[in-house]
Amino acid sequence: MRWILAASLAAGVASSAVAAAFAANTANPENLSPIYGVGLPDGYRKWELIAPAQEAEPLNELRAVVGNDIAIKAYRAGKLPFPDGTVLVKLAWKHTQSPEFESASIPGAATTVQVMVKDSKKYAASGGWGFGRFINGKPVDQAQHETCFACHEARVKERDYVFTKWAP
Amino acid sequence: MRWILAASLAAGVASSAVAAAFAANTANPENLSPIYGVGLPDGYRKWELIAPAQEAEPLNELRAVVGNDIAIKAYRAGKLPFPDGTVLVKLAWKHTQSPEFESASIPGAATTVQVMVKDSKKYAASGGWGFGRFINGKPVDQAQHETCFACHEARVKERDYVFTKWAP
Repeated sequence: MRWILAASLAAGVASSAVAAAFAANTANPENLSPIYGVGLPDGYRKWELIAPAQEAEPLNELRAVVGNDIAIKAYRAGKLPFPDGTVLVKLAWKHTQSPEFESASIPGAATTVQVMVKDSKKYAASGGWGFGRFINGKPVDQAQHETCFACHEARVKERDYVFTKWAP
Repeated sequence: MRWILAASLAAGVASSAVAAAFAANTANPENLSPIYGVGLPDGYRKWELIAPAQEAEPLNELRAVVGNDIAIKAYRAGKLPFPDGTVLVKLAWKHTQSPEFESASIPGAATTVQVMVKDSKKYAASGGWGFGRFINGKPVDQAQHETCFACHEARVKERDYVFTKWAP
């Protein structure tokens, strides 16, 4: 897989350690997250599943976290910290009742897509991770991005700031 | 992708229409489902996500359905019926509370893996689909497999007997 560095706008410094690689849409700075300059990675919908999850009210979502090859390899090896170049993407949908099965609930409309990119130099101030939160392909505002790292740091610092565990 | 026909033992007739292709473990007839002779396909854990789902009590599971390349292409094209060679796999885990996040719930232990294989000739008597339900890699008993098609037929015949829709 070939990666193109395209997320140096917000952080100001291009790290040569990471071939952090994102879609053509990241050529437009409006598509990059505030603070971190993270974009939606190309082709993430095809990435391998790490785990599904459910988020209760008020968000009321079904979710699935997928990862790029570097992420999957690290998960399978069970090694922390994640190496530079790791990209995790959490897809989320409204959690809705199945029309065919009383006991089943399924994805409704897509809500947010959330991205974590590991670059230990570029994102040294946030545990080595850059964050991006997107709705309809566009990043949400800076205030929301200011909450990312504090929460990950408070709750899962010992797991390299990553909540999601591999679904066996 | 190369497929090896390996599931003709139980059904008795090898269909040349489908290069239905399964793991080395299907060389052992004990690993094939009753009635249908469906095995666990090789490498399915790496397949592309179609959608997550939740199943309420008493099963209380989080699930994810993935598909082989033929399945994904058909989903993306939105075309029914699914072509021969389609393989769908539903992974399931106990639905458990996240220890770090009150509002989140996550996969616990793996429960069942369920497989659907499309071969319109071989499985003509069951809508073109062969079914397999596995626990710890071994198929469950014949009585359970006798329920598969009746339920799919009763509820989602008009969607080529497939419950899961593509998560957008």
